[in-house]
Parts: sequence; C-alpha cells; structure tokens
Amino acid sequence: MKHLLLTAVAAVSFVLPASADEPAPVPSPGEIAATAPAADWTLIAPSDLLVMDLAPDAKGKPRRVVIQLMPAPFSQGWIGNIRMLAAVHWWDGTSVNRVQDNYVVQWGDATEKKALPEGLAVMAESGYVESGFASAGVHAGVGGTERLLSVPVKTDAFSGLTGFWDGWPVAGAKEGYHVWPVHCYGAVGVGRNMSPDTGSGAELYTVIGHAPRHLDRNIAVVGRVISGIEHLSSLPRGTGALGFYEDPAERVGIRSIRIAIELPAAEQPRFEYLSTESDSFARYADARANRRDPFFITPAGGADICNIPVPIRPVVAK
Amino acid sequence: MKHLLLTAVAAVSFVLPASADEPAPVPSPGEIAATAPAADWTLIAPSDLLVMDLAPDAKGKPRRVVIQLMPAPFSQGWIGNIRMLAAVHWWDGTSVNRVQDNYVVQWGDATEKKALPEGLAVMAESGYVESGFASAGVHAGVGGTERLLSVPVKTDAFSGLTGFWDGWPVAGAKEGYHVWPVHCYGAVGVGRNMSPDTGSGAELYTVIGHAPRHLDRNIAVVGRVISGIEHLSSLPRGTGALGFYEDPAERVGIRSIRIAIELPAAEQPRFEYLSTESDSFARYADARANRRDPFFITPAGGADICNIPVPIRPVVAK
Repeated sequence: MKHLLLTAVAAVSFVLPASADEPAPVPSPGEIAATAPAADWTLIAPSDLLVMDLAPDAKGKPRRVVIQLMPAPFSQGWIGNIRMLAAVHWWDGTSVNRVQDNYVVQWGDATEKKALPEGLAVMAESGYVESGFASAGVHAGVGGTERLLSVPVKTDAFSGLTGFWDGWPVAGAKEGYHVWPVHCYGAVGVGRNMSPDTGSGAELYTVIGHAPRHLDRNIAVVGRVISGIEHLSSLPRGTGALGFYEDPAERVGIRSIRIAIELPAAEQPRFEYLSTESDSFARYADARANRRDPFFITPAGGADICNIPVPIRPVVAK
Repeated sequence: MKHLLLTAVAAVSFVLPASADEPAPVPSPGEIAATAPAADWTLIAPSDLLVMDLAPDAKGKPRRVVIQLMPAPFSQGWIGNIRMLAAVHWWDGTSVNRVQDNYVVQWGDATEKKALPEGLAVMAESGYVESGFASAGVHAGVGGTERLLSVPVKTDAFSGLTGFWDGWPVAGAKEGYHVWPVHCYGAVGVGRNMSPDTGSGAELYTVIGHAPRHLDRNIAVVGRVISGIEHLSSLPRGTGALGFYEDPAERVGIRSIRIAIELPAAEQPRFEYLSTESDSFARYADARANRRDPFFITPAGGADICNIPVPIRPVVAK
C-alpha cells in the first residue's frame, strides 16, 4: 500500500514503452512536465532569487529557502525595497516569528525596533498604491498594456478570470484588463498594518495552507518559495495570537538573506520553470484538470489556479 | 507589526461597542461565529469522534489528534470498517509513515503485513462502490433523496455546485442531485491502491496543503481533523518517494486510536460546530467571501468551498 496517492508533480524516472498490444499509458501531469523538451524550460535569473539561510536544525543540518521574486510589472515597488534590504544584509540576525497552521509563516525583526535603511520606497505615499492595490505595482494591465493570459480558466470563485503570465499564476477582473498575482501555497507576500500603510517589504510571509485568496489585492505578493519550503512549513506552530511564538526561544534565527548573485558563483542556486506559454504547459495544465492517469476514476473536469502549480526544478549541471 | 494578517477563524475576546458618533465596526467572520447564539451551535456526538494519541513529542508533551467522522449517507461503508478497526485497537502500535509537503500525512501499518480483522466490508465487492465512487457511500443524493445544499456556491472549478450539508463541505454535479464530500485542508480520506481496490479504511491520510480537489470522487473522504492537526502538519517531511519516511526511525508512533465513547467519560473530547443551516453560518460565509472588516481593502466577492471552513470549537464546561 505504498503508492496510495499520486504526487502533485511527481519526478518520473522512466516511462514504459507502449507495445502494439498495449495502449500507451496516459501520462500524468508530472510525466508531461518531466518529458517536456528542454526548450520549454526557462532559466530563472539568479538576480531574481532570494536565498534565505536559517539557523541549522537540531541535528546541525543547514536549512536553505530559495524564493523567486516576481517579474515586472508586478509589485516592483516592494521588490525594490526587498533588494535593498538584502543588499545591506538587513535581515541577518532577524528571525521567523510566526507559524500559523493552514495559513502563513512570517519572518522579520521580532523586536520591531530595528532601524530600516534610508531610501526605502514608501508605497502609500509614492504612487505605488492607488485606490487600494488596484493600480501599478500589483496590477499588470496598467498604462494600456493588454495581453492575453496563458491557459485562462474562467471558473474562479475569487475573480473573473485566472491564468498564467510569464510563469506566474494571476487573476483578472471580469471587465477591463487588470490582472494581479494570487496567494497560492508558497506565495510570498508583504506584511502590513492597517491601510494606508502597505508595508515596506521588511516583514514577509509565505503561505503554508489552503490558498488564502481573500488576501489577493489586499496584500502585495512579491514572490514564491521554489525550494526548501519544508524548512518553514514543518516548523512548530506558534501558540500565541495569530500563531506568533510566545517564547522568544521558539523563534528560528535567520543567518542571512541574499540576492543569489551576491553569493559565490559556484554556490548560486539555479532553477528553471516550465514556460507557461509552451504547449507542454498547456498539456500539463489540462492533465491537472482532467486526471486520466491510471490511479484516477473520475476526472474533475477543472482545477483552480492554485491546483496547477507551475513546474519548477533545479538545473542539473552537465 | 504584530497584527499583520487576520486569522482565518479568529477567536474574539470582545467586540467594541458602537457609539453614536462611530459606525459599528464590520464584524470579521471570526467575530460573527464567536457571537452566534448558543442555539446555532451543534454538539458533535462523541460516538462520531476518533481520538488518535501519537507518541509524545521530543519534550515529552502528549500529541492528541481528534477526527470527526462523516455522517450518513456519506462513506458509511469505510466508516463502519474504521469503527471496527478502532474497536479492536488495530492501529495501536502502528505509525505515521508519510508526510508530503503541501499534500498529505498518512498513517497505518508500515509493515503492510499486519492482519486485518475479519468482517471488514470489501467495498469494491459489496456494492458500496458502483461506477467509480459515483453511488452509495460517497454520494448523498442516492435513492431519490433530494435536498438543497446550504449556502450554495455555483462557482467551483471542480464541480457544478458546492455548499454545505449537515456541517460538511460538499460538491455536486451540474445535473441531477448527486453530491459528494470534498478534500479541504484537514479532510481525512482512505488510502487505496489502483481500482477496484478502494481501500479498507486501515490506511488513512489527512490533507495538509492546498485542497487536492482532484481526489474528490476518486478516494473516499471519511472525516476531518478538528483538533490537533498541528501534530501532523508540522512533522518533518519524508524524503522518500511521495514523502514516505525512508528511515523507520523517522516514523511517529501511534499509541492508540479510539472512538471517543470508549474513553472514560471525563476524558471524552467535546466539540460543537456552527450549524451550516443557521443564519449565523450564512452571515459567516458571506463575510468570508466579502471581507469588509477593517484590514481589508478589496473584498473578493466570492470564496471557494475550502475557504469557508466550518467553525468548530471545544465545548467549554460550565
């Protein structure tokens, strides 16, 4: 009874050849991704990777979390701040302070007293936010840019339309062409206080439960964890309000957060994603929505945007 | 920056009174639940609670997980088996064997050799399963039963309709009146091999990530974790295929699994849920779909079924 459930995006080591007598098995979504041509995979620039090294675990093992930052035109004001904070090593010595089950893990300065560097953009005062996250910085359909989403899905409980944009899940309005990033598992967002303080980017969180899509358009999404999320999602849950750790000793130290290009070349993580504009991705998304591989009996006939995780994998050196 | 994100179903200790000058604050979903009249809460019968005691954690703290079993007409064949397995203490000495990030935690007999008691129903052969989970045991709309769902939501990526049935999230077909339980966070299901083996109920799992709704109608949902899920969701992820623990020493021992009525009366857990047929629940669900409480800027205007978790709380002794 080992193989009771298929994995979401399974690594596939081999595919059985079809014989004349035997119909070709229907490939699983993971198999479609694994056998996609190399040209359908897109390298993620190391300059868009944030590398977070936590204190080693109880057994002394290193804990590295890699976050991909969102591309333009999404959330660039906050992302500019995050780049600056990483450049001045602001997070070094801060900690993971909150772990709320089925919701978020949050990190930053637990003392709330550490001075921020000068020069950070203040989103609410600088035009990054207009009418409540409804304009530049979060939405893509700004300044007349019009573009179709890849693999659009019109059935979404939270928006008029969902789909993919340069490798990222996004949602759109029923009318017009505003689109915005969505809170799927692993999404990284910017903690904030009540409006109009939109957060600086110094306080970050990632989603570790069912997609809290009600946060879309209410908090800026700036990236996603692409490796090592288990170092965050398996942390003990905080017992204080909202899952904050009550005892400072429970916090998990952050040794450093760096943009990957600041690391020595040999240590820079290298990842690639399955291009959401590729035929392979369209087949993968269709297979996610209509599981026809052997384990399944009744394909759903659809999937929500967060149930179609974009395949991402390390680049293997040749 | 402590209160950066509102909790999904927050416990509320007090609500500020409205003055003549100040409009009443819009209550959050958690506040609506917390202030619902006592009559809107329904006691969960201890005979429908499964109590799983894991081995204590590294600090010696007990780890108890409480699971509510689904009511008729859902999945009763498997649930009958589960009651029998608990009655003969079959799970005592078994273990949690699999923890796959953003997917499931699974428990049962890691050796796959422990004999099952005689008398278990074999679903595939006994009429519990017809045409792939599409009939008795999973669907409710069986034998002419017709009933409207509470708080129906027609926008669902995986089905024609979602809503609530006696406190449980369910989905329905576009046509006819078949409904079936859904895989939300914390749902408990029956591990199985390839069809037509539908699983006995001895191998169980719970969802610890984004709702894997593609499993609906493909695996039997038999219950949900209502307390202590953090003892499962925060376990180290398995490094083997599908998240199985590679080293037997990683497994987490199960001391016992009992139906609550088998425990001494004073030790029986007591929980209640907000009746999904109540006005309070309708207001709660509306508030989940349209966050108007102070933190929020842009209400989504909708929510998926798994983003409207049914409020469940311990019954406080008076």
